[in-house]
Amino acid sequence: MTTVRRLSDDELTPEAQAVFDEIRAARGTDFVNDFWRALANDPALLRATWDRLGAVMAPNGALDPLTKELIYIAVSITNGCDYCIHSHTAAARAKGMTDAQYGELLAVVAMASQTNALATALGVAPDQTFVAD
Amino acid sequence: MTTVRRLSDDELTPEAQAVFDEIRAARGTDFVNDFWRALANDPALLRATWDRLGAVMAPNGALDPLTKELIYIAVSITNGCDYCIHSHTAAARAKGMTDAQYGELLAVVAMASQTNALATALGVAPDQTFVAD
Amino acid sequence: MTTVRRLSDDELTPEAQAVFDEIRAARGTDFVNDFWRALANDPALLRATWDRLGAVMAPNGALDPLTKELIYIAVSITNGCDYCIHSHTAAARAKGMTDAQYGELLAVVAMASQTNALATALGVAPDQTFVAD
Amino acid sequence: MTTVRRLSDDELTPEAQAVFDEIRAARGTDFVNDFWRALANDPALLRATWDRLGAVMAPNGALDPLTKELIYIAVSITNGCDYCIHSHTAAARAKGMTDAQYGELLAVVAMASQTNALATALGVAPDQTFVAD
Amino acid sequence: MTTVRRLSDDELTPEAQAVFDEIRAARGTDFVNDFWRALANDPALLRATWDRLGAVMAPNGALDPLTKELIYIAVSITNGCDYCIHSHTAAARAKGMTDAQYGELLAVVAMASQTNALATALGVAPDQTFVAD
Amino acid sequence: MTTVRRLSDDELTPEAQAVFDEIRAARGTDFVNDFWRALANDPALLRATWDRLGAVMAPNGALDPLTKELIYIAVSITNGCDYCIHSHTAAARAKGMTDAQYGELLAVVAMASQTNALATALGVAPDQTFVAD
Repeated sequence: MTTVRRLSDDELTPEAQAVFDEIRAARGTDFVNDFWRALANDPALLRATWDRLGAVMAPNGALDPLTKELIYIAVSITNGCDYCIHSHTAAARAKGMTDAQYGELLAVVAMASQTNALATALGVAPDQTFVAD
Repeated sequence: MTTVRRLSDDELTPEAQAVFDEIRAARGTDFVNDFWRALANDPALLRATWDRLGAVMAPNGALDPLTKELIYIAVSITNGCDYCIHSHTAAARAKGMTDAQYGELLAVVAMASQTNALATALGVAPDQTFVAD
Repeated sequence: MTTVRRLSDDELTPEAQAVFDEIRAARGTDFVNDFWRALANDPALLRATWDRLGAVMAPNGALDPLTKELIYIAVSITNGCDYCIHSHTAAARAKGMTDAQYGELLAVVAMASQTNALATALGVAPDQTFVAD
Repeated sequence: MTTVRRLSDDELTPEAQAVFDEIRAARGTDFVNDFWRALANDPALLRATWDRLGAVMAPNGALDPLTKELIYIAVSITNGCDYCIHSHTAAARAKGMTDAQYGELLAVVAMASQTNALATALGVAPDQTFVAD
Repeated sequence: MTTVRRLSDDELTPEAQAVFDEIRAARGTDFVNDFWRALANDPALLRATWDRLGAVMAPNGALDPLTKELIYIAVSITNGCDYCIHSHTAAARAKGMTDAQYGELLAVVAMASQTNALATALGVAPDQTFVAD
Repeated sequence: MTTVRRLSDDELTPEAQAVFDEIRAARGTDFVNDFWRALANDPALLRATWDRLGAVMAPNGALDPLTKELIYIAVSITNGCDYCIHSHTAAARAKGMTDAQYGELLAVVAMASQTNALATALGVAPDQTFVAD
C-alpha cells in the first residue's frame, strides 16, 4: 500500500543499481528490503539516504552498533513509524539484542513517554542546573 | 511558567514528603528538581511516577544505566519535551556520556527522524522477514 | 517570541475588530489573549477559527463543557502545544475542574502515552472485536 | 504483523498467567486481546502495565469512567496509535458512549489539533493570566 | 478496519447526502472516498469539514493549488496519517506533481525532520533576528 | 537554555570554522545563527548537516526555493520545533513570502492537522485508487 511502485531489480537506473549493489555487499545477502525499492524511484535521494545511514551507523564509533539500533527503535516508536520499528527491531536482534534487553527498551520508552507527557502538561522549565548555556 | 505551583518543602503533604526523602536519599543531594515539585501537587501521581521510574531505571538490568539514559533522551527529543531533554542529557553526562557519544546519539536520532519520515511518506509495509507474528 | 506582531486594538482591520467584539461579549471581559492578537494578522483565518471554536465548544452538546476542555487539554499535551495547554488548563479550572480531576486527567494522559508507545512498539493490529467495519 | 509472537494461554509463564487471570476476572470474559498477548513476552512489563492501568482507570475516581475513556481516545488519536484508538473506542462504547458523544469527541480533537498547530506556528507564549507559577 | 461503518449512499441522512452531492459535483466523478463515508456518521462534522476544506483549498488564493497539496502532504507525513498521505499524494499528482517534484518534497520533509530533531535536542532558542514580536 | 554551549568564533575547530566560512559566503552576511553555533560542538555532524541542507535546498531544483521553505515550515510546525519555525518563517519572508501566502500556509497546516486527526481517529484505510503498489 505504497505511494510509489517498489522497483524490481530490472527497473533500476544505473545509479540506483549501484546503491543496491552496495546494500547487498554490506549485508552479505541478495535480499533488498522494500524501503529501498520504494526509495529507488528517486535515485539521488536513495543515494543520499544510504550514504548517510552508512556513516551514522558505522561500527567504529563511540557508541556500539547495538546501542545505536536501540536508539533508532526508540525514535521510530515515538514517531510511530511501523516500517522502521519492524526493520530496526529485526536489525537489533541480528546484532544480539536479547529478549530481556528488548523488554527493558520497551519499559524505558514507555517510562519516557509518560514523564514527557507529564512534564509537558505541567509546563515546567528546565532547572538551571540542567542548562549548559 | 507552569500550570501548577511548584511546591516548596514546607508545602508538601506527608505522602509527598516521603517521596522527596527517597529522591534525596537515592541521589545523595538535597536538591529536588522542579518536575517533582510540580508533580507534588498530586501526591498519588508523584508516588506512582517515582516508584516506576526507580524500577525501570534500576542499575541491575539487562541494559546498562547510560544506555537507558540515551534511550530516554531519544524519546524525549522525538516527543519534543524540553524539560526531559535537559534533565536526561544532564543525567547521561553524570553517568559518563562523552561528547563523542552525545554527538553520535544526535546523529542517530536525526537519521532515524529522516528515514521515519521517508518510510511513512512512501507507505511501505514491513517486509515479511521483519515480522515475528 | 512570535513569528508575527500581536496586534493592539487600534491595529485591527474592521473584520478582525468584529471578531474581537464577539470574543469580549462571549467571555464578558475586555481581555483578549495573545493567540487571537497574533491570529488577527489574517482576519479571515481569525474569523474561521473563532466561529468553528464557538460551534465545537458550545455548551448545549452531548458532552458537557468541562469534559470538552479535558479532551482539549489531552490533545494539546500530546501535541506539545505549550500555549494551548496553559490556556485550556485555565479554561477548565474556570469551568470547575478540581485539583483531583486535574490529577486524574494527567494520570490518564500519562497512562495512554505509555500504552500507545507499547502497542506501537509491538506492532499489534486491532483485534477483530474492536473493529466496526 | 507484530515484532513479537502473541502468546497463547499454554505459552505463558506463571507470572503472566496470573495477570491473564486478573484480566479475565476484571472483565468477566475469557477473551484476552492481543495487546496483552504480545506484552506477555515480558511478564514484568505486563504486570506493571496491567497494575497501573487498573489504578488509573479505577471507577471510583474524581472523573467518571467514560470521561477517562474519552481522554484516552484523544491521546491515542493524537499519538496515532491505531490499536489503542480501536480498543478504547470500543471500551468507551461499552461504557455508554453515544454516537452524538463520539461525534463531539472527534470535533473537539479536530478543533484542538488545528489550534495547536496555529499557536505553535505563531510561537505565542502563554499569557501571564494562564500561568500558575 | 475503521471505528465506524463506512456508509453506502442509501444509508445517508439528507444532510450527509447533500454534502456527497457537492463532493461529486466539485470533483466531477461519482466516486466518494472512504474518509467521507466514515465521517458521514456525523453529518454536522461532515458538513463543517467539507465546507472548510473547500474554503482553504480554493484555487483562487495566494498559493497555487499544487503548493497547497505539497504542504498538506508534508503535514500528513509528519503526523503519520497514512490515509491523508495517500489521498493527498494522489491529489497532488492529479494537479500535476511530477516525479522530480515528489522526490524533492520527500527530501525537504526528511531534511526538516532531522534539523527539527537536532534543534529540539540542543534546546536552542530562536535568534532575536528571527522573532517578530 | 541549550544542552551544549553555543560556540563563539574563536572556539571553533578548523573543521567547524570551514563550515562557518561556507555559511557566511552562501548567505553574504557575517551573522551565524545559534543552531550552527550549538551544532559546532560536533564538527562532523555540523558538516554533514550543512552539506545536506545545501543540496536539498539548492535553488535549481524542480520546486522553487519559496515552496521548499513553506514545506519546511509545515514540517517544523507539525513537529513543534520552535527554533525551526522561527528561522524558516524568516527565511521564507526573505525569499518573498507575502502576508497572504503566510496566512494560507497556516490555514492549510491547520486544515491538514484536523483531517489527519479525523482520518486517524476513524481508522480509515487508503482507498485502492490512492495506492500505487
